[in-house]
Amino acid sequence: MKAIAAGLLAALALAAAPALAKPVLTPEAQAGVLRDDALQSNAAYQWVSDITTRFGARPAGSAKERAAGEWAAARLKAMGFDTAVVESFPYHAWVRGANDSIEITGPFPQKLAGVALGGSTAGEVEAEAVIFDSWQAFVDSTADVTGKIVVILQPMARSTAGEGYGATSGPIRWAGPMAAQKRGAVGFVMRSLSTDDHRFPHAGATNWSDGKGIPAMAISSPDAEQLGRISAMQRKGEAGPVKIHMTSGAVFPPVGTSVNVVAEIKGSEHPEQVVVIGGHLDSWDLGTGAIDDAAGHAIAIAAAKSILDHGLRPKRTIRVVLWGSEEMSQPEGFGSGGFNYARAHAAEAPNMVAAMEADFGADKVITATLPATADAAYGKTMNRLLTPLGIAIKREPSTEGDSDTDVLYNLGVPCLTLNQDGYDYFNTHHTPDDVLDRIHPENLNQVVAAWSATLWMIAGSDVTFTRPEPAKAEK
Amino acid sequence: MKAIAAGLLAALALAAAPALAKPVLTPEAQAGVLRDDALQSNAAYQWVSDITTRFGARPAGSAKERAAGEWAAARLKAMGFDTAVVESFPYHAWVRGANDSIEITGPFPQKLAGVALGGSTAGEVEAEAVIFDSWQAFVDSTADVTGKIVVILQPMARSTAGEGYGATSGPIRWAGPMAAQKRGAVGFVMRSLSTDDHRFPHAGATNWSDGKGIPAMAISSPDAEQLGRISAMQRKGEAGPVKIHMTSGAVFPPVGTSVNVVAEIKGSEHPEQVVVIGGHLDSWDLGTGAIDDAAGHAIAIAAAKSILDHGLRPKRTIRVVLWGSEEMSQPEGFGSGGFNYARAHAAEAPNMVAAMEADFGADKVITATLPATADAAYGKTMNRLLTPLGIAIKREPSTEGDSDTDVLYNLGVPCLTLNQDGYDYFNTHHTPDDVLDRIHPENLNQVVAAWSATLWMIAGSDVTFTRPEPAKAEK
Repeated sequence: MKAIAAGLLAALALAAAPALAKPVLTPEAQAGVLRDDALQSNAAYQWVSDITTRFGARPAGSAKERAAGEWAAARLKAMGFDTAVVESFPYHAWVRGANDSIEITGPFPQKLAGVALGGSTAGEVEAEAVIFDSWQAFVDSTADVTGKIVVILQPMARSTAGEGYGATSGPIRWAGPMAAQKRGAVGFVMRSLSTDDHRFPHAGATNWSDGKGIPAMAISSPDAEQLGRISAMQRKGEAGPVKIHMTSGAVFPPVGTSVNVVAEIKGSEHPEQVVVIGGHLDSWDLGTGAIDDAAGHAIAIAAAKSILDHGLRPKRTIRVVLWGSEEMSQPEGFGSGGFNYARAHAAEAPNMVAAMEADFGADKVITATLPATADAAYGKTMNRLLTPLGIAIKREPSTEGDSDTDVLYNLGVPCLTLNQDGYDYFNTHHTPDDVLDRIHPENLNQVVAAWSATLWMIAGSDVTFTRPEPAKAEK
Repeated sequence: MKAIAAGLLAALALAAAPALAKPVLTPEAQAGVLRDDALQSNAAYQWVSDITTRFGARPAGSAKERAAGEWAAARLKAMGFDTAVVESFPYHAWVRGANDSIEITGPFPQKLAGVALGGSTAGEVEAEAVIFDSWQAFVDSTADVTGKIVVILQPMARSTAGEGYGATSGPIRWAGPMAAQKRGAVGFVMRSLSTDDHRFPHAGATNWSDGKGIPAMAISSPDAEQLGRISAMQRKGEAGPVKIHMTSGAVFPPVGTSVNVVAEIKGSEHPEQVVVIGGHLDSWDLGTGAIDDAAGHAIAIAAAKSILDHGLRPKRTIRVVLWGSEEMSQPEGFGSGGFNYARAHAAEAPNMVAAMEADFGADKVITATLPATADAAYGKTMNRLLTPLGIAIKREPSTEGDSDTDVLYNLGVPCLTLNQDGYDYFNTHHTPDDVLDRIHPENLNQVVAAWSATLWMIAGSDVTFTRPEPAKAEK
């Protein structure tokens, strides 16, 4: 940071942090004002632009992640947050090789667009491919895959709620490489978890292999279609067996650290009562993590910032958390930023009024899943506040948290989710194409509008939610 | 090719080559039948699928290009063409390095998505970037770029006729690296010639550097936007100077050969009169060259095949040419497939009735540029045949050929062009994303329908075109 820039930041800090005043409107009226003003603000988009331009990719446990976290904490202080600190935790990183490759070496030699799965093992193998067009076909098959490369071409279903990701990521990406290895395979290749047909492979974590697994890669949708065509020719006797050569230089550096960023606006009446909101700080290494998840944590920041910008002080404390290392699977004893945050702050869980995370891109909110409450007025108020934004409130109250808040839910913290439209999310999720250009500012503004109103109706009111039964302690 | 596949091909050859008969309908009526049936045929799509699946990328002067050419000649014979031969010519290839890279090393270190320009020089440089937001700004600037990397961020205009490509490719991509070198720069970086905002760099040729130039690369549109944002911060004093590190391992192998494929359906009445149609065989190395230009040569093949499939023999000879090595600039004494074809067949030029090439993707034909003719009926007939396909006939007759036929035009051969919609063409042109998935079969069928009717109205009729004045011999 140059001297002139530091000066600018100090000036901004003064401008953005007027002495916070008591609200004069009813909570609902104030929430409506915050909502409407947020539609014009572009604050989240500006944050995403800043962090992705300054740091690019922010891989879990990397120096970039830490630098971005430190910058974010300074920026949040300058914005007017009362506190903003970086909390470190031990972390076991995984780093992609610099010159990974995958190619067909027979019958029709050509390069494929593919990337190693996070947590997978390095290696160079060349072997015959055994191609399955679905995960079920692989599971049901008795084919001998010993010494071969297992290839799963199953495509992913596209929907607004992203059910296709849940249905395919678990068995194929998480369990696939280990299952193939167990059956004697020397390599694993899957069609990317993608709803698009452009030639980007999608990264993503598999179960932590600790360097004892087999090379495992995801190829782009067009490359999967290509293998499907060759496989069809093979079945018709028009082509010989498919051979694949793959090289992964993945390394598991010594244990280091990762970070969470925690910033607060202290509550005026109940400072001990905390509303936790956030998104994650880290990203995959291929893009700049604009939609996953700079957008998510920027939404939470912009919602809190809208309260600061209106010169308001909430009754309860608003705590914004930028969780580190959400993207990677971890070995025993380590864990994501969400896990480490919950572990470090478990004692405060009974005072956490609610938790809310954004980790589903930058498109508009379409439905809201609210926590259960005995307060009959709450649902009606939320209906009046959110339906003008085109948001439908779900009948069923929430029964889980999101990627980093689910651990809190299991500690008894009520969670809520403003569900964004995920129809296009998996087009570019975890690809080199996850960059600022994917974001439409007007969509992001709608999300921040919904978040601002929702946040104020918790932090600026006395609503209480039914607390979930704490689950058995997570490992 | 396995025995069973060869057997299948022989069977196909018999099925696809009935004894060719004299037409019984008027040329216009027959052209209408060919047109309508082509809308349902999928023959071009099938060809593109076959060649891109079997060979992937087919770089100019590569073994892949030759193998694809030999396969194509055999396939064309099997389809029922009277002759199909591979014609070789000496060629100087350029090969991209395996581990090229470009990254920002300051003030915000991050990798960029970039590729070396074809014909550019290898090297590894790290230097301060001097960033220009247009070519004109670079030309007009008196900035000292000695020892620096010149960066041109000019975006490309999008239009159906692709004027933006012509306007930007010439000065920036072709002349840019040499101009920067002349002013003392040690590297050259340009925003890809792209109308899209996805993170694919677009390859393309620059002037042949013979290894005596400077490293020159094209970066993707989002990376150019990223540099633009950093440049803006720099101007405001919020960021230090931009440093770029770039590595290109480009090599210039010893002179080898490239190929043209030439296949004929002999004319029944005037076999010496030749209608030349085609597209190019080679492709850039990053994708599989589906839209550029498997689609183009497949359109020409499918148009000729529609005549074979209807059991017709044209009055004049139809010659389909798959030109090799269209994509690369060449040093003195060498040249593209189009150049070498024209040189080898110059003596036949007076007997070439017309030439037509497809090298503008796989979207629909929207306008037709026909050759001048004294035959008043011809324009009206073409109007009746093409307007039902949504094609407008241009008032002005053609005054040039296309990428491989312009050399023939300069030898006095009338050229015509069925202009396809290029609105989306430069989204994926020369990128890794130039794959089969970019093609909508129904669009390609419309193009083949227009080509079939147009081809029959020349090869199956007696129309003669006004011959252009031969230009001075091309080098």
